[in-house]
Amino acid sequence: MPETLKISTHSRSEMIDLTVRIQRAVDASGVKNGAAVAYCPHTTAGLTINENADPSVVSDILETLDKLIPWQAGYKHSEGNAAAHVKASLIGESVTVLVQEGRLMLGTWQAIFFCEFDGPRNRQIIVSVK
Amino acid sequence: MPETLKISTHSRSEMIDLTVRIQRAVDASGVKNGAAVAYCPHTTAGLTINENADPSVVSDILETLDKLIPWQAGYKHSEGNAAAHVKASLIGESVTVLVQEGRLMLGTWQAIFFCEFDGPRNRQIIVSVK
Amino acid sequence: MPETLKISTHSRSEMIDLTVRIQRAVDASGVKNGAAVAYCPHTTAGLTINENADPSVVSDILETLDKLIPWQAGYKHSEGNAAAHVKASLIGESVTVLVQEGRLMLGTWQAIFFCEFDGPRNRQIIVSVK
Repeated sequence: MPETLKISTHSRSEMIDLTVRIQRAVDASGVKNGAAVAYCPHTTAGLTINENADPSVVSDILETLDKLIPWQAGYKHSEGNAAAHVKASLIGESVTVLVQEGRLMLGTWQAIFFCEFDGPRNRQIIVSVK
Repeated sequence: MPETLKISTHSRSEMIDLTVRIQRAVDASGVKNGAAVAYCPHTTAGLTINENADPSVVSDILETLDKLIPWQAGYKHSEGNAAAHVKASLIGESVTVLVQEGRLMLGTWQAIFFCEFDGPRNRQIIVSVK
Repeated sequence: MPETLKISTHSRSEMIDLTVRIQRAVDASGVKNGAAVAYCPHTTAGLTINENADPSVVSDILETLDKLIPWQAGYKHSEGNAAAHVKASLIGESVTVLVQEGRLMLGTWQAIFFCEFDGPRNRQIIVSVK
């Protein structure tokens, strides 16, 4: 059974490290060798893997996305959050991480981040381990 | 056996909602709990998940990509469609969607889109459900 | 057991065709029908699928990314390679390719590329076939 993680975001743009919670979902699954898929069921948010050691990596990613895809830029979408939709498609809605001996096979500097592009909101992520 | 979906595109840039066809492939597979992988075997097209309720979301995505990656920009690729290749790598060539009780676990507003970046053409998508 | 491919890069930005090596990992796995996941455990590199017939496609991709995400742009990350982190999140850290009759189901023009964004370095890719 896939597991659902609940997330509360507090800013318009924000990256939240979910690595520990996704590792717990791997533990709960009992899977020793396989893969974890984390899936974002939202259209103005996404998932990515990047560095969590220096928090300025996350702020550089979010600021660069803001420069490339400004919040206001003559978009047609009437809800006013078109930029968040574009960012979601560029970052992607899922990540797949291999699991070996019950551990996510992440690189030394890698963490799995939920990317909020239209917060603050209550969000969720679905995690399936097989 | 993976299933092949045939697609005809009618513009240079276009997003086509494949959700119903991919759900049918899930139905035909008989898989109740697992995941569907949709794969684009082309290098100037891709797959993404985003909102289909307001069609202006799709046009905002395509126009923003055109602004970021203009069709003409001193590219070296002799076929003249370098912009489409760049967009394909940014959007990605596959999506993975979990399946539960025989249904794609898409969020309320999510649809799976084929992204044409160098049409019009005849294209195909491969869908595997396990 | 996932297989590890070792890669040496020679420039700051570089795309290296891994298709033959990933097909060999599929051969070694003995899997006839399934999927290969290639995973990049680094935060300043990624994996993508694009054309390898004309090498100018690769140079156009790398140059367009450099224009969009310049190496110097007032980033805060103290290591000086923030641009590489942003590119990694946009390109993505994994690719999934279906396998049928023991062959990667790549399109005619598709190849799987390791994308170096902060080289030269020694890198690795993990390949799992199921």
